[in-house]
Amino acid sequence: MMDISQTLPTSSIIYALDMVGVAACTAAATMLAKRLQFDIFGAFFVSFLGSVGGGTLRDLLLNRHPIFWLHDLNYLYFIMVLSTIIQIFYHFLDKLDKSLRWFDALGLAAFTVIGVQAALSRGMSAPIVMLMGAVTAIIGGVLRDIVCRQIPLVLQKEIYITASLLGSVYYLLLLHTDVSEWVRSVTTLLLIFVIRMLAVYRGWNLPDLTWKPKKR
Amino acid sequence: MMDISQTLPTSSIIYALDMVGVAACTAAATMLAKRLQFDIFGAFFVSFLGSVGGGTLRDLLLNRHPIFWLHDLNYLYFIMVLSTIIQIFYHFLDKLDKSLRWFDALGLAAFTVIGVQAALSRGMSAPIVMLMGAVTAIIGGVLRDIVCRQIPLVLQKEIYITASLLGSVYYLLLLHTDVSEWVRSVTTLLLIFVIRMLAVYRGWNLPDLTWKPKKR
Amino acid sequence: MMDISQTLPTSSIIYALDMVGVAACTAAATMLAKRLQFDIFGAFFVSFLGSVGGGTLRDLLLNRHPIFWLHDLNYLYFIMVLSTIIQIFYHFLDKLDKSLRWFDALGLAAFTVIGVQAALSRGMSAPIVMLMGAVTAIIGGVLRDIVCRQIPLVLQKEIYITASLLGSVYYLLLLHTDVSEWVRSVTTLLLIFVIRMLAVYRGWNLPDLTWKPKKR
Repeated sequence: MMDISQTLPTSSIIYALDMVGVAACTAAATMLAKRLQFDIFGAFFVSFLGSVGGGTLRDLLLNRHPIFWLHDLNYLYFIMVLSTIIQIFYHFLDKLDKSLRWFDALGLAAFTVIGVQAALSRGMSAPIVMLMGAVTAIIGGVLRDIVCRQIPLVLQKEIYITASLLGSVYYLLLLHTDVSEWVRSVTTLLLIFVIRMLAVYRGWNLPDLTWKPKKR
Repeated sequence: MMDISQTLPTSSIIYALDMVGVAACTAAATMLAKRLQFDIFGAFFVSFLGSVGGGTLRDLLLNRHPIFWLHDLNYLYFIMVLSTIIQIFYHFLDKLDKSLRWFDALGLAAFTVIGVQAALSRGMSAPIVMLMGAVTAIIGGVLRDIVCRQIPLVLQKEIYITASLLGSVYYLLLLHTDVSEWVRSVTTLLLIFVIRMLAVYRGWNLPDLTWKPKKR
Repeated sequence: MMDISQTLPTSSIIYALDMVGVAACTAAATMLAKRLQFDIFGAFFVSFLGSVGGGTLRDLLLNRHPIFWLHDLNYLYFIMVLSTIIQIFYHFLDKLDKSLRWFDALGLAAFTVIGVQAALSRGMSAPIVMLMGAVTAIIGGVLRDIVCRQIPLVLQKEIYITASLLGSVYYLLLLHTDVSEWVRSVTTLLLIFVIRMLAVYRGWNLPDLTWKPKKR
């Protein structure tokens, strides 16, 4: 374990998974943009919004400057290259939807861990840390859907925010143990990923809280 | 008067009315979310956006950090508890709409006064102070409506922004007198509340500026 | 040349063209607001959002405080006066749409140059400078369309973002020459304006990247 964690430092793993999340968001956004007949730069714009919108709002709310993609241009380049490729091969990717879910779940996991760590680094309390994990993970998709005039799906169904929040709780609990950051991050990632994929394949939904009085 | 103002300091009154405004916004947002079949966390999200969205944008624009709800967790807890209760008893609250208007008008009044005070504390000029009062009071509802794909009602009809602006003008005028902050805040609150309720019950609308040339 | 540049310093020209852009955005937003039956303040709100929304997001992202319109009240006053006039004479302005395009293209040009200069003043790299030029120029219109529930046209068609980006590239290239700031700004403005107007009148669109496999 120690060897692996030294060869692959946590930050590198998180960064790699961050890019997986960005890739999933870019793919989803570009395909939505193509369906709506946006042009090249319109697709870039929506991809950028969907991929880094959540982290950007988090950084604005936490007053963390400079915002991460202003100085790390890899995000911008990666999104543009990937969106271009997806635009070119759009007609061959129709059936990508299913496999997108795996990437999407990895992205949800990575974005949550990054958001949690960012909020902790600003000394936030546990509830705000959880909120910032969820903001990082879901706001990009919400913004993308708003610009494209879709009702944000993430608010309507499936265990999505829930998986992010459960992961954050687990991460925060581990802070009280002497588990290394490496183990904490990676197991949180796996937990969120597994919850999300189980929700997708078993059709899990949150129970409806509403008390329905029996009709006679 | 002095006794009352010492027993009930202005800040406590404002804070209490702030929570009334948050309650009204949470109720409105949760009921909209239920109608759109959002799940539990979707309803929390929309409630949070509708309640504190205006104050958050104000703080971002004025560069006031930390944003108020990052350190005062009462907002987060209050919204979640209230939204949960409303989700549970949703079917019994159908006729709440009318009484919501009273809370909503109290919220409009409280949010405006808070926004005005926040802008004054940053040394802003009178027009910006008025704008920030209105931003605090109405942007939450606008954001909620955008996420839920409604055309923001507040922009279309009824004396709403107008009540906020008239209250701000009144507050700013009183700054040139030696009236205590207590009287200034409370009378501003009452003024906005009364204007708004009169507009609701008398069906007041702003006149249409447009000059309609007579058809022959 | 030197004489003109001394009589009319670049910043004054840019400022004047900034106001032209604000005027074009206010006109477009007010007419949209009237069509949707927004009231007076609703029209002000949408005009303000459409005119200064892009520059505001740019300043928030770059952490440039105070945001430009907080201390220069000319923006607020100009937008309110112009929007009022347009509301009054709405029925006489139906055929304004064509000429609006000229102002709109001037605004695109001015907003881009201002955004580029703002990003350069914060030491940003070339790709971010280009992005900030485009953000300043287009986000106002996107926000206006979102509030008014239109699909943002700018993302869908016509050379719009493209004109902004080409102008930014040209401006950045000129930084490596010893051309004066005056010439740099003014020629960039003209370049963007000409590209945009050619796109409008010749119906230019970006090519679609998508590779369409031949059907048998």
